[in-house]
Formats: sequence, structure tokens, C-alpha cells
Amino acid sequence: MAASRIVVVNPNSNDEVTAGIDRALAPLRFADGPEIVCETLADGPIGIETQGDVEAVAPLLRQRVLAGDADAWVIACYSDPGLHACREATVTPVFGIAESGLLTALQRGERIGVVAILRRSIARHMRYLRALGISERVGGERPLELTVVELADEGRTWNRLVEVGRELREIDHADVLVLGCAGMARYRRRLEDRLGVAVVDPTQAAVGTALGVVVEAAADD
Amino acid sequence: MAASRIVVVNPNSNDEVTAGIDRALAPLRFADGPEIVCETLADGPIGIETQGDVEAVAPLLRQRVLAGDADAWVIACYSDPGLHACREATVTPVFGIAESGLLTALQRGERIGVVAILRRSIARHMRYLRALGISERVGGERPLELTVVELADEGRTWNRLVEVGRELREIDHADVLVLGCAGMARYRRRLEDRLGVAVVDPTQAAVGTALGVVVEAAADD
Amino acid sequence: MAASRIVVVNPNSNDEVTAGIDRALAPLRFADGPEIVCETLADGPIGIETQGDVEAVAPLLRQRVLAGDADAWVIACYSDPGLHACREATVTPVFGIAESGLLTALQRGERIGVVAILRRSIARHMRYLRALGISERVGGERPLELTVVELADEGRTWNRLVEVGRELREIDHADVLVLGCAGMARYRRRLEDRLGVAVVDPTQAAVGTALGVVVEAAADD
Amino acid sequence: MAASRIVVVNPNSNDEVTAGIDRALAPLRFADGPEIVCETLADGPIGIETQGDVEAVAPLLRQRVLAGDADAWVIACYSDPGLHACREATVTPVFGIAESGLLTALQRGERIGVVAILRRSIARHMRYLRALGISERVGGERPLELTVVELADEGRTWNRLVEVGRELREIDHADVLVLGCAGMARYRRRLEDRLGVAVVDPTQAAVGTALGVVVEAAADD
Amino acid sequence: MAASRIVVVNPNSNDEVTAGIDRALAPLRFADGPEIVCETLADGPIGIETQGDVEAVAPLLRQRVLAGDADAWVIACYSDPGLHACREATVTPVFGIAESGLLTALQRGERIGVVAILRRSIARHMRYLRALGISERVGGERPLELTVVELADEGRTWNRLVEVGRELREIDHADVLVLGCAGMARYRRRLEDRLGVAVVDPTQAAVGTALGVVVEAAADD
Amino acid sequence: MAASRIVVVNPNSNDEVTAGIDRALAPLRFADGPEIVCETLADGPIGIETQGDVEAVAPLLRQRVLAGDADAWVIACYSDPGLHACREATVTPVFGIAESGLLTALQRGERIGVVAILRRSIARHMRYLRALGISERVGGERPLELTVVELADEGRTWNRLVEVGRELREIDHADVLVLGCAGMARYRRRLEDRLGVAVVDPTQAAVGTALGVVVEAAADD
Repeated sequence: MAASRIVVVNPNSNDEVTAGIDRALAPLRFADGPEIVCETLADGPIGIETQGDVEAVAPLLRQRVLAGDADAWVIACYSDPGLHACREATVTPVFGIAESGLLTALQRGERIGVVAILRRSIARHMRYLRALGISERVGGERPLELTVVELADEGRTWNRLVEVGRELREIDHADVLVLGCAGMARYRRRLEDRLGVAVVDPTQAAVGTALGVVVEAAADD
Repeated sequence: MAASRIVVVNPNSNDEVTAGIDRALAPLRFADGPEIVCETLADGPIGIETQGDVEAVAPLLRQRVLAGDADAWVIACYSDPGLHACREATVTPVFGIAESGLLTALQRGERIGVVAILRRSIARHMRYLRALGISERVGGERPLELTVVELADEGRTWNRLVEVGRELREIDHADVLVLGCAGMARYRRRLEDRLGVAVVDPTQAAVGTALGVVVEAAADD
Repeated sequence: MAASRIVVVNPNSNDEVTAGIDRALAPLRFADGPEIVCETLADGPIGIETQGDVEAVAPLLRQRVLAGDADAWVIACYSDPGLHACREATVTPVFGIAESGLLTALQRGERIGVVAILRRSIARHMRYLRALGISERVGGERPLELTVVELADEGRTWNRLVEVGRELREIDHADVLVLGCAGMARYRRRLEDRLGVAVVDPTQAAVGTALGVVVEAAADD
Repeated sequence: MAASRIVVVNPNSNDEVTAGIDRALAPLRFADGPEIVCETLADGPIGIETQGDVEAVAPLLRQRVLAGDADAWVIACYSDPGLHACREATVTPVFGIAESGLLTALQRGERIGVVAILRRSIARHMRYLRALGISERVGGERPLELTVVELADEGRTWNRLVEVGRELREIDHADVLVLGCAGMARYRRRLEDRLGVAVVDPTQAAVGTALGVVVEAAADD
Repeated sequence: MAASRIVVVNPNSNDEVTAGIDRALAPLRFADGPEIVCETLADGPIGIETQGDVEAVAPLLRQRVLAGDADAWVIACYSDPGLHACREATVTPVFGIAESGLLTALQRGERIGVVAILRRSIARHMRYLRALGISERVGGERPLELTVVELADEGRTWNRLVEVGRELREIDHADVLVLGCAGMARYRRRLEDRLGVAVVDPTQAAVGTALGVVVEAAADD
Repeated sequence: MAASRIVVVNPNSNDEVTAGIDRALAPLRFADGPEIVCETLADGPIGIETQGDVEAVAPLLRQRVLAGDADAWVIACYSDPGLHACREATVTPVFGIAESGLLTALQRGERIGVVAILRRSIARHMRYLRALGISERVGGERPLELTVVELADEGRTWNRLVEVGRELREIDHADVLVLGCAGMARYRRRLEDRLGVAVVDPTQAAVGTALGVVVEAAADD
């Protein structure tokens, strides 16, 4: 069992984001459990904000998966870039944090609200929700509309999270929220407490799901 | 972290089934991970085969959850009896193996096929798939149509699993299967190897998902 | 034909509600038509407000149906508790007032608005609408948010019905309303006149539908 | 109450069909109940088999409704010709037998099978099912593919009803059937007995629903 | 190729509207391309505003198509009157401007907003969107609520177009608009420039689609 | 008007396919109409058969669109690679042949059947149909299952087209077919004649739609 490895790939080249993911996943590391490795994608773009960015990074992720060795892969970007290209390239299970975060949220509430970073991502996410076949369960998606620099300001980010989360709860009638970003785990619990609805961090959700699948496989060995 | 407990409740009063679930979950127990406790529901019926059985056991499950102490509950019956009554009764996350198994399967294939035990359960499951909002992703559900006594015959059960799985793959175009029962984990890997499609054991899937949510909560403490 | 009996069961133990249902159904009693019997469920709870209440009462309804003698059963609670458990237990047609009220409303307008009593019932009703497969035709559901004591105040209840009905018409674009409660028939016509949209009382709708099915059966004898 | 009138209009000019409808509705006539009048549409076509026929008869039905006096109208043709044109022309409730038959069937089974007369009607019915918003609940529609002359042969018609009904039950997994025609009530019960699934006659269903709505209105006077 | 003819039928008897359509289609006429003929339907009603109008005009359109000679027909009224009756009557392709406009809009944006002329048309359009099977892609429809006389006032019409278009963009989150009327092509470009979203004129869209199909047929001769 | 240019990009590097597309589009070229330019994508892969191929070519298409000059772009590969990445990169309309072919087919029949080249593309196409929001209108997709070499054998390809088309018509009840490939226009008319259902060539459909949009834009200048 100790040999099992879950590799979490941050597709943008921002090591700080990778470090944040690593911290958020620490509690899922057990003495005799699967190893959880977080890495930054070599040659990944600075940020993944557009459909163009998503498609540009997909072949790099596919190569990474083909070249690598893991019992499960997690793509840690809320656009799930390259998810199906990777799945097709390997029999190893591959998880995307948007897909896992949304499907976990379906188990925590009746109606999902998604906190997006940028407004221009929303149409892309809507297409994806329809492709997943779960759009009937999503009440709405609303953007923080903050730049990367602004996101570094924790107070400002927190205020927007509360504002946007309230709109999702009050206007869109969401009773569970998904943080639409790989790097926001540190706000999850506080937001849950403030707003009184479940909040899902998609990276933790995806690694949790991967953990279940990895051990499920091991169970039969 | 060592204090976390996931309680898996087998709602029928069959201790043998509970023991089988316990064995299937052994690989998810880590030295420093959440405790995973499997228990038989006191006063649960012999079997849960009808809507009447499902509704009769729901209040018992709700009482169990209200009386108990856990960081996550898993209801280990493929009809997810009492799932929403339990969720409403507690802020602790509650998982149903049908819901978790199906949502995990969405991450392993494009089109789900469900192996039911009995034909008469299928209409009930169809209503549930629509309530979940994912029926568009399910290609079909087909029954083994075996009695409890016949299910005890492993050879016979295996043959039917292969037959039914093939029909789901060939006729319903499923590329991932869910075992629609709490007690079939021991066939999972073999069936996957025989049919060449992913096969999900719903109890392992639900406990895997619960594990992720429990550690997600712990991550923020 | 005179021998036909439609039994309307009020699942909560409130005889006053049963008496109100009985008055609302008086015009459906014909000299040579089916007998319409309204009864209070023995051992029913005081109120049915939660999923827990719904599931607790289901086995009692199933027993009632199994023990009884009727040509059609109507379960007179807007959560349709035990509907499928009862259907499974008998070949006699069983109707639920939520299902019948909503399907009748589809024949009176393009887009349904539901007047709920309590906000916390709405998520449960949404699951049910999806299970019915008609959520695309429902514009919204909004609560009166009145307690049982407050509901006894007719003036206050009327004012809330008008307010909530207006929101359903103006904000959710509903052109037909369903009263989401067994005991509001007396407001139906007035509300229709005030708001200028059709308003459906679900108990009258269900008994009307049952009447059609009962005589349909008799037609072939 | 004795003054209430339900007018059932047979839109084709075949008086024999009207007489058959009248016989099928006899059990819904009560001494002190609403009057139920069956009439043949003046100038209606011989048969209604195409979209062209449907649209040609709609203005005639609209005129009939505008000129007439009723507490409810029933359009007794399985294509529901002119249904929305009539609804728009009057505040009096108007029912279509296809809509009513299908919505009644949703209360008798999980998955509907429709017995069509002709194959070429099926695409038209599919559009209508989508417009109703209930296509998810319909397993299939299959044609008798019999001419009017052949339909007059009861033995032949019966044999086809059993064949087609079996296909709907076995291949399309329907557990409730709707007879897709105004003139087949006399086979309903026999078919139900033969196939072991509920069978809905849409004209009886529509008049039953109308009866409920008419008395519902009267209840509040 | 020069022999190909696309006949655009304005189903209302307003020659001024036909002349406007003709001007809007001028750029689609090529020296060696298909002839594009615009005509007013003989005996068509003054306006088509209700379901009754729609059904009344359908048989006239069917007769026109049966009597005529064309390589493609376009019905130039946003209710697509008689579309399926015409399709059934001929093997020649028939296009409706609502259907073509909406399906073209799906290729220009993620979420459609429809500018209706009158509020009372919206329920009819909603049924039609469901029958088309694309309602999931439509964010909303909002009316100008202007009479024919008011529509003649270009300044007033323009102001309402901007107001309603803004509501569709801001409240319903539409990123592409469809002008729900045959006679508004002259505002299309200006509205696109003002609101910053694509705007589709449905008559141009339908004739464009017809052009493609006509030449597609010619390509294989 | 003569200045308008529609650029059709074949994303695979096979010049023979581009030449075939060019021939199929000849009838859409008018003396005074938009120029239609067919080109092979520089550095495109040999074939596009997997999700990996689709994502690898997307950035190249995006660069092409950014670098180029056109009034409309058409991506001539049935997987619509890079469609949304290109749309996001330019205000110029961009069309994908799968999307255009399917939406044109919705205007020619009730239920679409798609002829795929390879079985392994079908799951990818199913995701895409859901993302488009039109999966309810698609009866099925079936593969020719021919290699590129086998596709060069016209007799063999024709036989498979007829076989697969018949299955789509008989088993999946399709009444309009879409050729799921850029290079099959030469079989379109013959297949239509043989099977008696409309057959859509997606490249011709997309260029037809583009033509309409380009002239629509010109109409307002």
C-alpha cells in the first residue's frame, strides 16, 4: 500500500500556488497511506484564464501523464484542462478538480453555487457543466472579478468571497458552494462558518476521491 | 486527526454483509487516519428490496445518526434509505453508497451501466437517478435477478455478473459499471479485468469520498 | 358503480385539517357517484414538515393501504409521503396531492409557481420535481413562512398568499399556481380572482383525477 | 352544480367515433353531476393523421369554443389539435386527450409506452412530448400501422394491440401504456389484464381530469 | 445553378413588411447565385400575434408550398407557422426564421436572449423552445411590448430595443440576442454595436441557411 | 461585398482532404459573392482521431485565426478542435463543422443519426452533444470503423455508409443523418437517395451558415 502514489499537477507555473496546494493536502497524508506528491507543470503558463490557455496546456499535461508514474493523477486547475486527453492516454485514473469538486458538492447540498475568479470564465464553465450533465443542479456561478495581484490581498479576497457567496445563497438559492480555484482552501472553513452553507475546496475533494479509488484498487490486490 | 470517525451503517440486520463490508474497507484504514467503524443497524430488516423496506428503515437510520457520534456517516445500502432524512437531522456529512458510487463512476467513464440485484428495484432506481439529476449519463440498469440464496453461490453470481455486465457494455454502451449492492466488492477487480471497463464498488467509493471530506474538514482546524 | 370508494387519507393527526379537506371535496360527491371518504391517519404525526416526518409516516400509510378497502387512495399531504411504497403494496391506484396538483397545473398554464408553507421544504420539493421529470415546467417555489398558529389567522395568511403569489407571477413568470398544502382550498378561487392566474388546489385535483380513473375502471366492467 | 357542462368535441367528422366516445364516457355521468356532451365537429376532416390535418382543424375548434357554452372543453383527438389556440381564446379550461392521457399515465407507472395508430405520427408526437417537457418519462412509442378499414376488424386490432404493447413492455421497458387514439376505450381493460401493466384511455382520462377541475371550480362558489 | 430559387413567404398580408424583408436580403443575391423571391402570402392575416393566428395561417402556407415551385422555402414569421405541416407536404427543404435564427445564435454565443414584440407571445415561444430541445441554452425572452403603430416610430422602437437588450444581457446573462420578428433587420448592426453582443436577424439567418442547403444540393448534381 | 473572405481550415496536414473540401465547396462560390479559401493547417497532425489530437491542434488553429484575415472562419474537422479558443481570440465569427452540421440537421429532421469514422470518437462526441445542449435530439451515433487506408476504397466505404445509415434509421429511428467527417461530401446525395432520409455534409453546412452570417453583416454596411 505504501507504494501507492497520487500525483497532483498544478498546470500553471506558479510554485507558490503549488506550495499552497501542498499545505492544503497535508491532512490527507497518512503514515501508511498513499504518497501525495504536488508538482508544478514544467513549461505551464503563468495563469490559466482563457479557453486558449486551457487548450495550450492540455498537451503538456498529456505528456506528463504519459511520462510519469502514479496510481492516480489529479489536475489541479478549476478548468480541468486536458482531463479527457489524459484519461484517454492512460488506464490510470485521472481526476479533475472541477469535476470532483462539483460531484462532491452534489453530496453536500441540493443546489450548487460556484465562486469563479473571473467573469470571462463563466461561459466556459457553463459549457462544461452541460457536458458533465449536471447543470440542472447548479443555481449559478458568480465571479470575484479580482486580478492575481488583488487575490494576494487576503482581506480584500475574503470580503469578495463573503459578498459573492451571499449572492449565490440569496439570489441563486445555492445551499452548497464550490470554490472555483485551486488556491483557496485556506478560506473554506471560515466561509462555511460565515455563510452557514457547506463549502467545497475542489482540490481536497479531488484528492479525497482519488484516495478512495486508489485504495479501492488496492483492496482487491 | 486520529479522533476522526467514519461510521458505516449496514441498514439490514445481516451481520455477514456487515463483515464483508468491513473486509472491503480494510485498505482504507490508516495508522494515523480516521477510524472506520462498520456496524449493523439494530432492528434493521432482513433485506431491503422494496420501497416499503426503504421507507421503513429510514426512521431507524435517522435515530441512529441522531444518537451517534461520527465525523461522517455512510449508509451502506444501494437504495440510499433515509439519506435526506439523516442529512436534515445533522450537520455531520452523510453519504449514501448509491449516490457516491454513481458520482464516482462519472469520473471513470462516459456512460454508466448499473448491475442491479432484482428487476423490481429498477423503477425505484430510475426515479432516484432523475432526482439526482444525472439520468442523462446512465445508459441502463440490468438485474442479476438472483435470490439471496443464489447470491451465496459465488460461481453462479460471477457468471451472471459477467453476462449482465456484457449486456450493459454491448447493448447499453456503458463504459463504466456500478455494482448496485453493498456486498459485491470481492468481484470488482475480476469483473473489471474480464470486461475491460472500470467497475465501481459503491461502498468503497462512498467511504473514499467520506475520507476526503473528513480530512478536508480537519485540514482547516 | 355506487360501490366505488375513494379514500382520502390525511397523514397528520389533525382532525381539523381532515374536516377542511372533507368540506373542500363535498362538490365531488354525486348521488350515484363514488363514495369519497376522508379520514385522519391513526398515529400520524402532528405535522409533516421535514424529510424525517415524511419517511416516518410512510410505513403507516403503507399499512393503512394494505389493511383497507378502496377503489382509489389519495394521500392528502403535499409531500406525497409513502406514495411509491403504497403503490408497490397494492394494485389499487394511489394518488399523491403534490403529483396530481402539479400535473393538473401543467394543463392550466405554461409555467408553474408553487406556494410552499415553509422555506425548509423547498429543497425536498425540488428533488421531487426532478424525480417527477417536470422541473423544466416549474418557474419557482416560494414560502409563506408561517407557523401553524399563524396559518390559523386567515387575514394574515391571505395577505401572504397574495404577496407570494405576486412574486411567483412577477419574478418567476408563473402563469399557474399550486397551493402547496392540503388545507388551503378555501383561498383558491379568491386568489385566482385577485392574481388573474389559474390556482390549483392539489387535494381537489387529486380526487378529481382519482374520480376519472375510478370511473374509467368501472366503464369497462 | 347540475348546470355544469363538459363538452367533448371529436374533431373528425366521423359520427361513429363520436358514438364510441359517448359510450366510453357513460360511467362518468352522474345524476347530479356535470352534463357530459359528446359532439362531432361540424366540417371536421374525415381523419386527422398529418400535421396538415392538425393545423387545418385548429381554427374550426377555436371557433367552436368561441361560439359555445361549456364549463370545460375536451378535444378528443390524440394530436391535441388547436389546444393552445382554444386555451388562448377562452378562460374556460380546455383539455387535450394526449396531454391528459400522458399526465394521468405518469401517475400510474414509471415509464410510459404509447400505442400509436400510424408510424408517421410518431415524429409529431415526439415534438409534442418535448414541448410538454416530459419526454424523459416516455420509453417509446410504437405504431399499430393499421388503416381505418383494418381498425374496424376487432380481432386484427386486438392482436396488434397485444403485439405492440408487448414490445413497449419488453423492449422499451414501459410499465404503463397510453392508447394513442380516441376510439380504443373498449380494449383498455382487456389489454391491462393481458399485459399486466396499467393502460390509460386518454379520453376517459381527460374527461376525468375535466370533471375534477369543474367541480373544483364549483366547490368555491 | 442559376435556376435555383429560394422563396421567402411573409405570412401576414402586410406588403410593407415584405418590402423590408426584401431589402434585408439584397446582399444575399449573387449574379450567378440562387434567385431569392420575397412574397406576401395571399389571404394572410394582418398580423400574427396569437396561437390562433398561427394555426389559421398554417393551411394557407401549406397550400402555397404545395402549389409552388422552389428549391427551398423560408417562412418569414417568428412563430414559424405551419413549418411542420409544410415540411410534411414536400421534400423541398422548408426553413422557419425562429428555428434558423435560434440555431444560428447558438453558433454566436453561449446563452441566447430573445427580443419579443409582445409579452403574450412568450409562453408560445417557450413551448416551441422546448419542442426544439434547446431551452437549456436560452437565458430569457423579454418583450418590447409595442403596438404595430408604435413600432413604426423608429426612435421609440430603438430605445426599447436597447432597454430590453440590456436587460437580457445584464439580468438573463445572454451573450447573443435574436430579434424575434421578421422586420427588424435594420436595427441589427446598430444594436450589436451598442450592446457589445452578437445580434441575429432571423430572416437573414434562415435565408443564409437555406442558401447553404440549396447549394449543397447543387454541389452533388 | 467582393472583399468578403471565408477561410476554411483543414486542421490535419492532408492536402488531399483539403482538395476534396475545396471541390465540395465549389458551388458556394459566386461571381460577386464572398471568396471561399480552403487551406491546410501548417504543422497540423496527419489525422485527428483522439482527444489528444484535438487538444494538440487547438493552439495552432488559434494562432492561425489570430494571424489571419477573414470575415468568417470554418474549422473543417468533425471534432471542432479549438472552436471556443478561436472564438475567444477574435470577434470574427468562427464555425465548426460538427456544430453547424448538427444544427443544420435539426432543420431537416426530427431525430439525428451520426455516422462516425471510428468507435473511439463516440464518447468524445457524446460529451460534445451534451455541451451543445442538443443530445435529446440525437438518436445515436455509429462508426464505420474503417482505417484511413480502407476509407480510400470507395466501394467499401460506400457499403459501410449504407449499412451504418440503415442501422441509424432502423434501430435508432433517425430521420436525418450527419456525415461525421470533413471528407465525405461526394457520398451525400447518393446516400440520401439510397436511404430515403436527408443527409447533411457538415462542411457544406458550415460554409452555408458562414455565408449567411457574412452577408448578414454586409447587409448592414
